[in-house]
Amino acid sequence: MGNVQEGENIMSYQPFTEQTVVEHVRQLGYLQEGIAECEEIGDGNLNLVFRIRQGEQRLIVKQALPYAKVVGESWPLTLERAWIEQLALREFATVASRYVPAVLGSDRTLAYTIIEDLSDYEIVRTGYLKGESYPELARHIGEFLGETLFATSDYAAGPIAKKRIERDYYNPELCDITEKLIFTDPFKDAESNNIEAALREDVERLWQDQALKVEVTKLKVGFVTKHEALLHGDLHTGSIFATQQETKIIDPEFAFYGPFGFDLGQIIAHLTLSTFHDPLKRFERFTDVLTVWETFEKTFRANFERAVEPFNTDGFVDELLRTVFSDTIGYAGCELIRRAVGLAGVADLETLPEATRLERKRDALALGTALIKERHGVESIDDLVTLLAGVRV
Amino acid sequence: MGNVQEGENIMSYQPFTEQTVVEHVRQLGYLQEGIAECEEIGDGNLNLVFRIRQGEQRLIVKQALPYAKVVGESWPLTLERAWIEQLALREFATVASRYVPAVLGSDRTLAYTIIEDLSDYEIVRTGYLKGESYPELARHIGEFLGETLFATSDYAAGPIAKKRIERDYYNPELCDITEKLIFTDPFKDAESNNIEAALREDVERLWQDQALKVEVTKLKVGFVTKHEALLHGDLHTGSIFATQQETKIIDPEFAFYGPFGFDLGQIIAHLTLSTFHDPLKRFERFTDVLTVWETFEKTFRANFERAVEPFNTDGFVDELLRTVFSDTIGYAGCELIRRAVGLAGVADLETLPEATRLERKRDALALGTALIKERHGVESIDDLVTLLAGVRV
Repeated sequence: MGNVQEGENIMSYQPFTEQTVVEHVRQLGYLQEGIAECEEIGDGNLNLVFRIRQGEQRLIVKQALPYAKVVGESWPLTLERAWIEQLALREFATVASRYVPAVLGSDRTLAYTIIEDLSDYEIVRTGYLKGESYPELARHIGEFLGETLFATSDYAAGPIAKKRIERDYYNPELCDITEKLIFTDPFKDAESNNIEAALREDVERLWQDQALKVEVTKLKVGFVTKHEALLHGDLHTGSIFATQQETKIIDPEFAFYGPFGFDLGQIIAHLTLSTFHDPLKRFERFTDVLTVWETFEKTFRANFERAVEPFNTDGFVDELLRTVFSDTIGYAGCELIRRAVGLAGVADLETLPEATRLERKRDALALGTALIKERHGVESIDDLVTLLAGVRV
Repeated sequence: MGNVQEGENIMSYQPFTEQTVVEHVRQLGYLQEGIAECEEIGDGNLNLVFRIRQGEQRLIVKQALPYAKVVGESWPLTLERAWIEQLALREFATVASRYVPAVLGSDRTLAYTIIEDLSDYEIVRTGYLKGESYPELARHIGEFLGETLFATSDYAAGPIAKKRIERDYYNPELCDITEKLIFTDPFKDAESNNIEAALREDVERLWQDQALKVEVTKLKVGFVTKHEALLHGDLHTGSIFATQQETKIIDPEFAFYGPFGFDLGQIIAHLTLSTFHDPLKRFERFTDVLTVWETFEKTFRANFERAVEPFNTDGFVDELLRTVFSDTIGYAGCELIRRAVGLAGVADLETLPEATRLERKRDALALGTALIKERHGVESIDDLVTLLAGVRV
C-alpha cells in the first residue's frame, strides 16, 4: 500500500488541493469513508504540505511544486527532488529510524511523500527563537550523523554497494542551488545576495580577500567531488523537529553524495547563529556544538570497528577524522557567511533590532572568515568552541 | 550505420567467431559482398579482438567475454564494460581525437566496439622491450590527459553537466578489480599475490609498515571518493599504441570518475618500470616522465583559463595542481609495488634474468614505498625525477 513505484502511476503531475489529496490518500487505503480533516500547512514556497486527520489516523502529505519561489523570485525546480527526499528518509531509517519520520508512501510522478504527522514536535529554530532548549538534540544529531554517514560510506558496505546507493542521489539541480548560494554568490557582487547597505563595506572587504576565496573554492570543489557519504544536504535548525525527548530530521530534498563534513558544518553554524540571537544561551549551545561533534566522532569510530576490509587499516580512522574535522570547520564558516549576506537569511539574525543585527552579521563574517582560513590549524573540538565563543555578543 | 543503441538489438549476447563477425559487420554495411579476411588477434583473456580486411577497408572488432581469465583463474565479469569503453573513447575524442582510435560502431547487448585498425602502430610496452623509442609519446600523453581530465571535470562545464557525464561511468566491477589488485592485496598476504620466494622477506617487511598502509588507504579512499574527472583507469604502456609520430590510447574499459592523479601516476610508474628493464634508456624515459607532467600541467593550465565561473578563482589552480601532483606520486608508488608483488606482473620485470629481476623488484618496492610516504614533500617534477632516477639500475 502506498509505495507506488515509478511507472505504475499513469496520472500526470498536478498539485493537490485540500480536497483532492484527501480523496487520493483515501483511495490508497489510508483513510476510511467519511469525514477527514485536511489543512495545508506549508509555506508554499517549494512544497505543498497537507496535514490530514481522521480519528486516530494522522498523516502528512508533502508534495513538491515544480518551481521555487524565493524572496520574490521564481524558478523552475525538478519534481524529482520529492523522490530523492523519500529515498533518503528511507535510507537514513535503515540505521537511524529514531531520528527520521516514518515514510508511509510515496509517488514519483505526483511527487509526494506521505509521512507520519509530527504535530507534537516543534521546528528547532522556532523553538530557539522562543527561548526553548532541547536537551537531547545535540546527542541525537551527532548519533544520526555518525550512523548515517558511516552506513552510506565505502567503509560500511564496500565500494560496490556504495556505488549502487550513490546512483540514486545525483540531484544536480539542488546541488547547484547550494553551490551558488553558499559557495559562489556571497563571495562576489551577485544579484541574488541580500546585503544590508550598512554592511556593504565589510562585504566588499570579503570580496577582496583572495586567500579566503581560494579556500572557499577548495571547499566548494570538495562539495562537488568528494563522494564520501549520503548527506542530508540542508541540515539547519529549520530542518529538525524536536521535543524535549525526541528529534526528527526532515526535508532531505538536497540529499546527495558529498563530504562528511558538510552536514556537520551546517548544523554547527546554525547552533552558533542561534547564540547570536540569544546570547544567554551561549553556554548551552556551545556545549551542544561540542556534543554534536563528540557524539558523531564516538558513533563513527564505534561503527568503524566494523569497517570492511579494504579500509580497516589500523590508524586510518584518526587521519580520516582529522580531515572531516577541518572540512566541518570550513563548511561551518561558509554557512555563517552566506547567512549574513546571501539570498537566504535566517530568523536568528533577521529578527534582531538593526544595530545588534548589523553587529552580529559582522561577527558572522569575521568568524566565518576565520573558520575557513584557519580550519587546518584548529586542533580539537574544544579549540573550535573557544573560537566560536570568542566572538563578542 | 553501426551505432546501434541499447534496446534496439534483439539478439542476445553470444561470442563471435571469425565467421560470424564478418557476417555481422557485413550486415551493418561495413563490408561489400565477397571475400573478407578475418583474424582473431586478442589474447583471449578478457576480450575477443578480430581484425577484418577487405580491400581498403580495415576494421577491428573488439568484443567483451563474460569472464576474465587471469593467470589460471576465471571469474565472471560484466559485459557492460564494452559499453563503458566505447562511451569513454567517444568522450575522449570530443577533445583529444588525435589520441584515441575512431569508434565506428558499438552494440551494448553484443558487447562489441568497432574501431579503426591500428596495425601500423605498436603497443608501447612491446616496442620498449625491443629497444624502441617514441619521441612524441610523452608529449601526446601529457596533452591527452591535460585535455580529457579538464574537459570531463567540474571546471570545464560546471557541476550540472559533469554530473550528467559522470552517471555513465559507475563501473563498480572494474573499479573493484583495481581497488583489490592495486590498493589492497599487495599490502597483505592475499591469495591473488604473485610473490617470488626470494622476495618474501622484503614483502613481509612492507606488510608490517603501518605508516605505509595508512597512506595507501588514504590513496585508496581517494580512488573511491574523489570524482574529479573521467579517467582512463588503466593507463599503462600496454594500453597505448604508438608510431614515431602518433599515439593512440586504447582499452578504457576501466574508465570511471576518479582522482586526476591516478592515470598520471600509472603512466609515470610504467615509464619508470621500463627503465628497470632497459637501464640504457633511463635518461630518455625520465625525460619522458618530466614531459608527461609538464605537458599535462601546461595543457591543464591553459584550459583552466576557460574554467567556469564557480571555480575560476585567481590562484586556485596552483593549489589544485599541488594536490594533483602529490596524488600522482602516491599512485605511481602504489603501481610500482603492485607490479612487483601483485597478480598482474609486467614483462618489463618478468623477462629479466632472475638475479636482476629480484633486484629490480626490490627497487620497485623501495621506490614505491618512498613515493607513497614522501609524496607531500616532493616539491617539483625535477625533484620527482631525481627521486625516480636515484634507484640504482
